[in-house]
This record gives sequence, C-alpha cells and structure tokens, in this order.
Amino acid sequence: MELESRLNAVPGTVRPGGRTAKVRAAVLEATRNALVDDGFHALNLDRIAAAADVGKTTVYRRWGSATGLVADLLRDMAEQSLPAADTGSLEGDLRANARLVLDTLTDPRMGPVFAAVIAAAACDEECAEALRGFYATRLETWAAVAERGLARGEIPAGTDPVEVLRAVSAPLYYRFAVSREPLSPPDADRAAAAALAAARAGALRSQAPDAAG
Amino acid sequence: MELESRLNAVPGTVRPGGRTAKVRAAVLEATRNALVDDGFHALNLDRIAAAADVGKTTVYRRWGSATGLVADLLRDMAEQSLPAADTGSLEGDLRANARLVLDTLTDPRMGPVFAAVIAAAACDEECAEALRGFYATRLETWAAVAERGLARGEIPAGTDPVEVLRAVSAPLYYRFAVSREPLSPPDADRAAAAALAAARAGALRSQAPDAAG
Repeated sequence: MELESRLNAVPGTVRPGGRTAKVRAAVLEATRNALVDDGFHALNLDRIAAAADVGKTTVYRRWGSATGLVADLLRDMAEQSLPAADTGSLEGDLRANARLVLDTLTDPRMGPVFAAVIAAAACDEECAEALRGFYATRLETWAAVAERGLARGEIPAGTDPVEVLRAVSAPLYYRFAVSREPLSPPDADRAAAAALAAARAGALRSQAPDAAG
Repeated sequence: MELESRLNAVPGTVRPGGRTAKVRAAVLEATRNALVDDGFHALNLDRIAAAADVGKTTVYRRWGSATGLVADLLRDMAEQSLPAADTGSLEGDLRANARLVLDTLTDPRMGPVFAAVIAAAACDEECAEALRGFYATRLETWAAVAERGLARGEIPAGTDPVEVLRAVSAPLYYRFAVSREPLSPPDADRAAAAALAAARAGALRSQAPDAAG
C-alpha cells in the first residue's frame, strides 16, 4: 500500500487503464478543452475538476496550479506522439516529419491546443519550460532520421541532426504561430526539401557555418 | 478645419511632432509597457490613458479596444522598421536580415514586445490579423533583396522571393516563440546560409518543389 500510494502521487505512473490513468486522462482532456475554449489565463482548477468529474482535492494535490496542468498536458502529448519515421531515405523521413507537423497543426482538435500552449508559454515561464521540454523530446526522437542519413552518407559529416529537424519544423510553425499564414501540404513538402538542401550544402552544422555553396 | 479633424481621426496621419503624433507615441509607449509587464489579457484602456497622460475619451475614441491598441502598435512597428539591406549580394543581404531579426528578438526592450504580440495573436483573432499584416509588410519589404538576387542570377528563376525571406526568419522565430531555445549570432548566420542554400537548390519555389538536389 505504501508503494501504491507513492506511485499514485506521480501522475501516470500506474499501468494504463488504472484509476490514476483514468483520472489523469479525464483531467487532461478537460484541460485541453478549457485551453482551447478560453485560453491559459482562464484555466481554473475548480472548473477543471468539475468538468473532469474528479474531486477538487485530487486536482489540487496532483497538479497544483494551471501551470502544472499545462506541463502535464505537454508531457502527455510527448508520450502520445508518434515515433520517428524510417522510410529508408532521409528525404522520405523528413517529408514524413513535415507532413506529421502539418497534420498536427491543421488538425481541428490539436491545432488549437498547440496555439494555446504556445500562447501560455509566452505568458508564463514554467509553461515555457514545459514547452521547451516537449520540443526537446520531439526533436531528439526525430533526430534519429538525420543520424541514419549521416550514416548512409546522405548529408555531410558534421551536420547537426537536431538542426536538420528544427529546419523542417521552423517554416511550418512560423506560418502557424508568427506570420499567421495558411498551411497546406506544399508548404510541408517545401519545408522538407529546403531542410534537406540546406543540410546537403553543409549549412546545418552545429558551429557557425561558412557561406553555403 | 474640416480636413484637419478628418486627418486627426486616423492615428498618425499628421506630421511627426504634431499633437496627434505625440499623443499616439505616448499611448503606444504605454501599450508596449503594459503588454510586456502584464500581457494582452490585462490591457486596459483606462490604465493606458492614465499612464500616457492622455484623456480617456481620446483613447477610447481613437483606439476603441485593447485589440485596437495592439493593431496600431504593430502598424507603428512596421512604420519604424528599418528598410531592407542592399549589400550587393544576396548572401550579404540575407545575413543582414537574419542579424536584424536576431537583434530585434534578443533586444531587452523589443524581444518582450514581440513575445507579447505573438501571444496576443494566439488569443485574439483581430490581433492575429494585425500580426499577419505586420509580417506581410516586413516580408514584402525584404523580398526586394531576393528579387535583386534573382535579377543577378544568384538563385534560380522561379524562386519565390517572399519564401526566401520566410526561410531566414523561420528558424529564429521557431527558437524564440516555439521551442523556446536561446538565440545567438551563429543561429542567425546559419539561418541565412540555410535559406540561401535551399534557394540555390531550387527548393524555395512557390509551387510544390521536387526533391532538392
């Protein structure tokens, strides 16, 4: 019993389908909905508890604050994310990554969640830290495709694998969160092709590059 | 008098140094400070009027809402922006653009303003529209450097000039607003080099590209 109560004190540490996992799923679903509907500034633990049909004490004890909810939501999003592609070529893998980012940002359910967590991170330093952790995990997972491309000699030695994956995501997020322009499949394919071309030209090394070409 | 009152109804339409310009400068300075200190959700026209030492009636009549203040701030930021570089080479101009974006986002005064307007755009559709307008203006101004590069044969015919400039900005804004990673001069130089390499490889055409290289 002592072990179980210790495990239960950390969200998500019991097997999927257990009571802790069900409570967490309900609370994070309510958090997602509240973020999308009203934004980070209106996140309220009492209302989350009511929407999730979970006791307020549980929500306050496990998550503590609006920031705690957003941080755990981002942890859950990282856990639920798809593994990196392995199509056999760097070009195919980068295109798969770009399409995954595109599909996520244009998904009617997930797009507004990403907009909301990006906005929360701009307003709250702990949310920013959680968002940084989310992208560090995702970039690290997908950097494997650039490492395989390096091993196959598709891009020059010295290329920074994480930088290649940042280069695929960046133009899509720029349109989504900064310049607020529409996103479509040609944008994803262009992002993948541009990242590959830049990597091949030696422009995505971890140190300051010489002029490409 | 009829002409003057008509001009005064539109912020910033009288000569710099006139009373309208002074009122606008004071109100936008107060808006910038309030955005940085407390964020878009706390923007309050009464407090802006008090901080700017301008009558409430003037602020309500000219700007109308928090969104109106943010939209006019973005218009002012676009007006105050530096013209595009003309160093004689596309490489030099893209590097100048990347350094300008870097300097702006890491400036202790302007960085927090950009973080705040990006967050406001995520929360408010009219702010999003104003931010879209700001970047459309900036990208259009700087696209001239890619047009000159095209005319000099530095990048292939069919390259989208605006896409080249988006490619320079995107990795810097991705670190700043999305992955929340630090930004330094090598990041700017890498962004410029990667954009140039992608453009040279034919990956920044306006239509869906073939695989680069």
